[in-house]
Parts: sequence; structure tokens; C-alpha cells
Amino acid sequence: MYINVLAEIPDRLDEESFQDLLRSGPVRIERIVSHGHTSPPSFWYDQDDAEWVLLLKGAAVLEFEDAPEPFRLAPGDHVNIPAHRRHRVAWTTPDEPTVWLAVFYGGDPGGEPPSA
Amino acid sequence: MYINVLAEIPDRLDEESFQDLLRSGPVRIERIVSHGHTSPPSFWYDQDDAEWVLLLKGAAVLEFEDAPEPFRLAPGDHVNIPAHRRHRVAWTTPDEPTVWLAVFYGGDPGGEPPSA
Repeated sequence: MYINVLAEIPDRLDEESFQDLLRSGPVRIERIVSHGHTSPPSFWYDQDDAEWVLLLKGAAVLEFEDAPEPFRLAPGDHVNIPAHRRHRVAWTTPDEPTVWLAVFYGGDPGGEPPSA
Repeated sequence: MYINVLAEIPDRLDEESFQDLLRSGPVRIERIVSHGHTSPPSFWYDQDDAEWVLLLKGAAVLEFEDAPEPFRLAPGDHVNIPAHRRHRVAWTTPDEPTVWLAVFYGGDPGGEPPSA
């Protein structure tokens, strides 16, 4: 189902909302809508794919296990998260929906590249 | 150089502005800022890579050589353009900058997939 990334935002959400916008080969593009949601305490995402994420609306704070300082995101801010860099969502604003665009792309292919 | 995709928008542009936000393996993510710019008449983009494009701000019209109707984009609208699907930018609004996010990803690899 086609969704407009910015116009079709649920007003209230009990849980975070995830919608695939594209799946093609090694690439998946997803919209995520949070509304005050955070990762559970002590939970870390540890992903096989790399993820480039852009905050489109709202406000959020990411934490990385290997970084001393949290990373605050305003609309238009983006961050590239290599595969297996452990991270969590420490905060999203309760004042409005926070909309993320996430591009997941092949991390470590785990093998030899095809020969020419 | 890090740029905020939405905050750091030039006010006036003589030419379209292109900035790479990510380059990694088969994926390139680019911000494009147009301001009334269009593709030259009879010019068609014919790209080796597939492109997923999201309009973040402004307004635009895309044309596809194989489609009878132009495709109007408002903020939040997105379209996936397979490799070599010929297209052009028929219009962008002169009233404000138009900001695009383009994700280019491996089109036809031109060969057999690697065996398992």
C-alpha cells in the first residue's frame, strides 16, 4: 500500500509503527513513527545490516554503546549506523509524532565478492 | 561535510545543488535542492542504477517516457525508478526550494548472482 511519508501519520500510537516503503535486493527503506517511545532499558539493537537513518519530524535521542555521549536528532539530521554497532533509542518527544526514514543496506556480505 | 538535510537549504540557486549524504557499496544517498529548475526539453535521465526518490519539501512534477501522465509530487511522496526507466523533471515550484532525497542502489547487476 502506498503511503505518503509525511502526510499519513497516525495521531496516537500504542506501539511504534513500521512501514516498508521499498524492498529491493540488499536495500530496504522503512518509515518508522514513534510517539514518546524508547527502546527498553538495557536493550541494544545489534543489526546484521547497516542502517542510515534520517529524522524527518519530531525529536529523538540515540545512544550508542561505544559512545560516551548520546546523540540528539532534530528534523533533517541523519546518522549512519554500521552493522552491529549497538544502539538504542533513548528518547523521542512526547509532544508530537517522530518520523524516521531508515535505509537498511547490506552490511558485511559475509563472503567473497563475486569474481568478474 | 555534514549537512542537515532540511535546515541547511540555500535560499537561491543558479543551478541545482547535489550533496552526497552516504556512499557505501552499492548504495548512494543524495540530497538534491531545486528551485524552479527542470530537466532540459527532450532530455531524459537514463540511469544504470535504480533510484528511490522522496520529496521532502516544495513541489515537483516528474515525467516518464513510458507513461502517458506526468507524476506530481508533494512533500512525503516517493517513487521508485528502476534502472534505465527514462524520466525527467518537468517542473519544480518557483515559490520555494524543492528538496529531494534520492537513494541510488544497484540496478541490474549485469551478471549472474553469486552462487551460494
